[in-house]
Amino acid sequence: MLTFFNPEHARHDAEFEIFRGQQVPAFERAERQERVAQRLRERGHELRVPHADAAAVLARLHAPRYLEFLAGAWSQWLALDPANAQRLPYASVWPVRSLRDDVEPDNFIARLGLYSMDNGQTVGPGTWQAGRAGADAAHSAALAVAGGVRAAFCLSRPPGHHAGPDFMGGYCFLNQAAVAAQTLRDAGAARVAVLDVDYHHGNGTQTLFYRRSDVYFASLHGDPRTEYPFFLGHADERGAGEGLGCNLNLPLPAGSAPEAWFHALEVALAQLAAWGADALVVSLGLDTAAEDPICRFGLTGDDFSRLGQRLAATGWPTVLVFEGGYANESLALNTVRVIEAFDTGARP
Amino acid sequence: MLTFFNPEHARHDAEFEIFRGQQVPAFERAERQERVAQRLRERGHELRVPHADAAAVLARLHAPRYLEFLAGAWSQWLALDPANAQRLPYASVWPVRSLRDDVEPDNFIARLGLYSMDNGQTVGPGTWQAGRAGADAAHSAALAVAGGVRAAFCLSRPPGHHAGPDFMGGYCFLNQAAVAAQTLRDAGAARVAVLDVDYHHGNGTQTLFYRRSDVYFASLHGDPRTEYPFFLGHADERGAGEGLGCNLNLPLPAGSAPEAWFHALEVALAQLAAWGADALVVSLGLDTAAEDPICRFGLTGDDFSRLGQRLAATGWPTVLVFEGGYANESLALNTVRVIEAFDTGARP
Repeated sequence: MLTFFNPEHARHDAEFEIFRGQQVPAFERAERQERVAQRLRERGHELRVPHADAAAVLARLHAPRYLEFLAGAWSQWLALDPANAQRLPYASVWPVRSLRDDVEPDNFIARLGLYSMDNGQTVGPGTWQAGRAGADAAHSAALAVAGGVRAAFCLSRPPGHHAGPDFMGGYCFLNQAAVAAQTLRDAGAARVAVLDVDYHHGNGTQTLFYRRSDVYFASLHGDPRTEYPFFLGHADERGAGEGLGCNLNLPLPAGSAPEAWFHALEVALAQLAAWGADALVVSLGLDTAAEDPICRFGLTGDDFSRLGQRLAATGWPTVLVFEGGYANESLALNTVRVIEAFDTGARP
Repeated sequence: MLTFFNPEHARHDAEFEIFRGQQVPAFERAERQERVAQRLRERGHELRVPHADAAAVLARLHAPRYLEFLAGAWSQWLALDPANAQRLPYASVWPVRSLRDDVEPDNFIARLGLYSMDNGQTVGPGTWQAGRAGADAAHSAALAVAGGVRAAFCLSRPPGHHAGPDFMGGYCFLNQAAVAAQTLRDAGAARVAVLDVDYHHGNGTQTLFYRRSDVYFASLHGDPRTEYPFFLGHADERGAGEGLGCNLNLPLPAGSAPEAWFHALEVALAQLAAWGADALVVSLGLDTAAEDPICRFGLTGDDFSRLGQRLAATGWPTVLVFEGGYANESLALNTVRVIEAFDTGARP
């Protein structure tokens, strides 16, 4: 499968993350993309650097003040104290209900909280560059598909589906799946389906399209009552305004077996077909694997092949966007299983 | 001055707090109240334990689900893992804009985030007991004033003015100033003024009374553009609904001199007098002292005497509620300066 990879991804690669107030080794590391890229090369897939600039698409999805903050955050942090080069900034206060988000504080750490939903990962020296190149990769993959390629893979990290209109969170900064969907729309697809199969609900993608009738967001994920992101992803979220009826959440209990998962997949695909999708973006999280260290579904290698085959059988022009997946040993194998099963299923 | 002290305060006394992602020695420690109590005793003031139960008042100010969470939080945390007795729980994700707060997650850490605005301090083994006794102390002090005592002091920690209807934050869990104001109202005062002179804006108190016309909230504080709580306390917040016009914020730049501070105090007191207050609650933060380690105003010992004298000159029955102040060496001296200057000024 034609793959656009993020050549700048390793510029965002923090050694630690904050988990419940403690610094712990980070799960979302550069090694993830590198292993997948290496495996794809070994298997003969074509890897390309992105050729198209996603700036205009990003500006229509994310808030200008958020993009401006992300672009300048590291230099602002350094300007406060040269010693900050040796430490990452972490937010400490968040504008929850009754607090205001319409006045941007002058205090840098407060601004970081304004533009965050958690404090697991934060902006480092190359986060903006890595995020921007990831958006370019998603944009390039979508342009290739819009140009007639049956399917393309955006291999990029950090992931994107938790990033909302104006906040980072869940290791995500810029929403690559949303960039791919918007690009397909701009290139002529009338109805774009986003199918999110990451273990975690794609709260950012849902929010970005919640009031739109031209992009349908469907997600199967661990029930947010017990799983991250906790505060979105419930079954009663059906869209709003013009987008009412264009959002489908299928939360599954942690520990659900593959058959329950594939049943939910069929429900989602049937809904997207009934809606009349003419192009598909898949938020491809591989953290549904049984061996994933921070998730609790039980998919095996064969299940990932089955997923790839099933996606190909939809017949839709498809952009696959790499999201989560933290069992680094099997991650590349499972990713390539999806990709190659898709290729096999899509062969005329 | 008649003082009601919190006999359970030391049950909440974490050694560390989280500051920008790092564990640092806590500023808000039991020593704060103990030093003030000792100084008051030495100076011959009467210290009493609270005699009245604030439960019914708390239930009208804070959301039931928040009170229930606080009351059970530590035992829920222990139930997850007996080893949790040795560590405090810290939130990791917050329901900011577009995320939902109407569904309480089953995950304990997510619930902690649902009910928090920051992650500086958290619930420990005795937080609920300390908070409840503090509310009782505020309630008892207000009842004494309602019963004819000219002024009473609620000496309690953890502080309260950042605690909102359903969230903790800024070292605060239950809003003691709000309990005192509501108690005065219930006992017959028609119009209760809350004057917040802590360095930090009392976002919780403001929010609790923002739509009410029977309690006026006025605050002088460090400008939230640069100072905690960052996301509330701006000059354009004037109240809403029936409470429109019953809220006054006087943010001052960090580093403001005492004369600017006393000028703002006069503006606030003139407004409260024009409104027709018949009782006063003072959120008495002492972190306006020049030597405070985390704040940036420059009040001296004489300024605290001047404050006490000026408050007495209003003539209003007054409940003083202890809030912030982290320069432990001078904290007790400055607190007693306010108290004794008030007593002197109030003498017939």
